[in-house]
Amino acid sequence: MTQNIYDNPEFFEGYSRLGRSIEGLDGAAEWPALKALLPELRGLRVVDLGCGFGWFCRWARQQSAAAVLGIDLSQKMLARARATTTDAAITYLKADIASVELPRAAFDLAYSSLALHYVEDLGELLAKVHGALIPGGHLIFSVEHPIFTAPTQPGWSVGVSGKKTWPVDSYLCEGPRRTDWLAKGVIKQHRTMATYVNLLLRLGFTPWHIEEWGPTDDQIAARPALEDERQRPMFLLVSARR
Amino acid sequence: MTQNIYDNPEFFEGYSRLGRSIEGLDGAAEWPALKALLPELRGLRVVDLGCGFGWFCRWARQQSAAAVLGIDLSQKMLARARATTTDAAITYLKADIASVELPRAAFDLAYSSLALHYVEDLGELLAKVHGALIPGGHLIFSVEHPIFTAPTQPGWSVGVSGKKTWPVDSYLCEGPRRTDWLAKGVIKQHRTMATYVNLLLRLGFTPWHIEEWGPTDDQIAARPALEDERQRPMFLLVSARR
Repeated sequence: MTQNIYDNPEFFEGYSRLGRSIEGLDGAAEWPALKALLPELRGLRVVDLGCGFGWFCRWARQQSAAAVLGIDLSQKMLARARATTTDAAITYLKADIASVELPRAAFDLAYSSLALHYVEDLGELLAKVHGALIPGGHLIFSVEHPIFTAPTQPGWSVGVSGKKTWPVDSYLCEGPRRTDWLAKGVIKQHRTMATYVNLLLRLGFTPWHIEEWGPTDDQIAARPALEDERQRPMFLLVSARR
Repeated sequence: MTQNIYDNPEFFEGYSRLGRSIEGLDGAAEWPALKALLPELRGLRVVDLGCGFGWFCRWARQQSAAAVLGIDLSQKMLARARATTTDAAITYLKADIASVELPRAAFDLAYSSLALHYVEDLGELLAKVHGALIPGGHLIFSVEHPIFTAPTQPGWSVGVSGKKTWPVDSYLCEGPRRTDWLAKGVIKQHRTMATYVNLLLRLGFTPWHIEEWGPTDDQIAARPALEDERQRPMFLLVSARR
């Protein structure tokens, strides 16, 4: 069962103060790159795995998606998500994406933003998603990048020159990583790039694109601290088709 | 034009003393994993891009490959390769793999071990390889892993606990890296994982497998220093089909 850290009061409080929680999609630096991977949403049936406050669900409906199912484990996040819409074509479901049952061939797009790295058995989940998509359906997701999740003690190292490096260890040792981010003891699952790619291939997902997200020049000009994100990618974005 | 570092006397001298130069394929820790990606070679026409001393060319013929073309930029390496065989089905060609012309649809397998990270324009080379393979033909290669090539000053960092980490910087800044390995000023090209994967996809290579090489338990038992290689992958192995 996936850890429900988002209902931890301290974590929820901290998460609620992030740019992406206040400003929504536009508050997430990687959103323009993730959006660029999406198909035209008009008329599509969409499932959002780990929908959080529901920003993407509402945005998908603004793009004329036919129906959106948002699934999340967090009661607190879903309460806020439900309070922000009266749209009957959006359904919010409280469930663990790792164990929820999905209807077969019922969706044109499965979307997930920064949720799959909490799931222990990604192969099982992606097999379920494959079954829930129609042939030709899209899978678009972001996760924390393996270089970001690998270290047993993640953090920047600053040399005498002031140059930042991201010390990597245990990259080939997959499994849980316990980190302190917003609250103590947040558990994420470290997987290698090869595991992400090979899982998709083995499950029969085809022509796709991967992106190791980094900020654009314009983003760095607007927010110089983002320059660090070029030293090592924080996010992996993936586009695949059933 | 690719740097011809292998004909630098200091580099050649050092390289000649490596296990993989003395023992051949079995002296390379990643060889069992790379071999596992290869198809049955019997009857295949093979091109080896960056064949070095020709170990793989000769091994391929032992596996009953029909014919093998080994290409390398290094005069010194080819001289030794030529001196070790009288097999008329092996042809050694002195050329830069980045600029050599290859016949169209002439090969069943294109193989390359630790050579492509010296090539500046990988897209151009892989497009040429795609054209040189028959439909269904195999492309199997190893390169230094992007985590290994990224740092501007590559090397282990050892913490107070004795724990080794591999500090990464400049991962998203692709391009040449000048390192001192066996000789000063060896130039390798750093590319991201996404670039390797997306290039293959864009060029029309299909179902394949990637591996971020790490030592097996048996290899570590036989050579404990290999344990470090689990902290960060040194090699990326790729299997693709035209």
